Amino acid sequence: MKYINKLEKTIIKKGSHLIVGIDPDKTKFPEFIKKKKNPLYEFCKFVINITSDFVTGYKFNVAFFEAEGYKGIETLEQLLEEKKKDFIYICDAKRGDIGNTSEQYARAYFDKMGFDAITVSPYMGVDSIEPFLKRKNKFIYVLALTSNKGSKDFQKLLSGKKHLFEIVIEKFLNSGYYNIGFVMGADYAKRIKKITSYRREIPLLIPGVGTQGGDLPQLLKNLKNEYFLINSSRKILYAGKPTDNLKIYAEKVRSECKKLNDSIKSLKK
Amino acid sequence: MKYINKLEKTIIKKGSHLIVGIDPDKTKFPEFIKKKKNPLYEFCKFVINITSDFVTGYKFNVAFFEAEGYKGIETLEQLLEEKKKDFIYICDAKRGDIGNTSEQYARAYFDKMGFDAITVSPYMGVDSIEPFLKRKNKFIYVLALTSNKGSKDFQKLLSGKKHLFEIVIEKFLNSGYYNIGFVMGADYAKRIKKITSYRREIPLLIPGVGTQGGDLPQLLKNLKNEYFLINSSRKILYAGKPTDNLKIYAEKVRSECKKLNDSIKSLKK
Repeated sequence: MKYINKLEKTIIKKGSHLIVGIDPDKTKFPEFIKKKKNPLYEFCKFVINITSDFVTGYKFNVAFFEAEGYKGIETLEQLLEEKKKDFIYICDAKRGDIGNTSEQYARAYFDKMGFDAITVSPYMGVDSIEPFLKRKNKFIYVLALTSNKGSKDFQKLLSGKKHLFEIVIEKFLNSGYYNIGFVMGADYAKRIKKITSYRREIPLLIPGVGTQGGDLPQLLKNLKNEYFLINSSRKILYAGKPTDNLKIYAEKVRSECKKLNDSIKSLKK
Repeated sequence: MKYINKLEKTIIKKGSHLIVGIDPDKTKFPEFIKKKKNPLYEFCKFVINITSDFVTGYKFNVAFFEAEGYKGIETLEQLLEEKKKDFIYICDAKRGDIGNTSEQYARAYFDKMGFDAITVSPYMGVDSIEPFLKRKNKFIYVLALTSNKGSKDFQKLLSGKKHLFEIVIEKFLNSGYYNIGFVMGADYAKRIKKITSYRREIPLLIPGVGTQGGDLPQLLKNLKNEYFLINSSRKILYAGKPTDNLKIYAEKVRSECKKLNDSIKSLKK
């Protein structure tokens, strides 16, 4: 099945546009997790299980697994082997390299681990992303306008009358590939309106509503399509205190996740 | 020791500006390697040992290790544990993400694996690279103008009178950090001349002379500083035929590597 169809089906079935970002920072793990044999695995599994009623999928931030060396990658592979059925699994890796190298990344994250989608960096141009794009049932979220301060450094540069991020979006939309969406920070509600107005079907992956503080009502007022995913990571994962016991920590995570999903649903109406 | 001093010392000591790119593609391994228990490890070790007389260091393309899953990363870690003394080790990863995520990549490649330098992608802005830059004895090669066709898509866009890649270079040179160099494809001899003329001390990492076909004499005529590294990967690694025996394959790799190093040395005079 094409990703766009899986995405649409999953959003409807789960009644959710929310993605939980799996950014497992071991310095923030609760005590009951730290005692386990593989805290990284246990924490991710715990978060996935406790939030699954309110989300449409998970975005794995590969950096946090790489930071633990090969054992971190082994854990990531194990978590992917145990994927929940009918959820969206996104690999947040922001890769992008010459063709023969991107091909290796595509093999790793699509062919081996079985992610549905991946985030990529556009700086090296469309050909650097082609090995991902050629897997037509997979999906690519290209970084367009990100939620960090540094997004102004280059993404907002003007070339002629257009910003770099707008040229990136146009170039990829005109690449002849259709399995492409974009990463747009939650802060950029009006720019998101513009994009989703002229191409209503473009899937967007939107970070920056949680710890990074994006304005949710403003964002949802301006979202003009149904294919968006809103990601929250730290605010959900570390909703509890490290000293909370399992039950209390679980309640806090679950409640934070439910609250955000409820907000999205009610604001979307 | 600061990287720039290590780089200078190593270039002089080895009499070489050549870096061998470790892009281990298992479909191209010679037969005598394929029979080994861990062909990935054996091939890299073989190439490193056979070329060390003619190079100043090695650039590891992380994608080829990631493609082999956690066992690939375990092999990469093992190769880094067995680093040759007094060589430059560069991690070619082209990472770049929001701060808390780039911090994880810096932990993985600098703190744990002990690479001297890393390649990064500038798209998300200077703050996305800061966790790398803050490790002041480590070094960051920022993608500026790459050797693939797609470099024209965004890197050569004009903003005002400057190309995006020129703005990237300026922004990073004015960031207040000094452990920064740039990746510039071998094809862009004249642009390299311009950059190395106005800031003679900027280290450059230059891919694209081998399989990608960059013009070496033209490049070296225009290089106006001593801190450059020229990378060649496929043309050296796969100089032999898969069916060659160890001795023949080794001679071909060694001779291709020596030939390139000799060319660089004689053209540089």
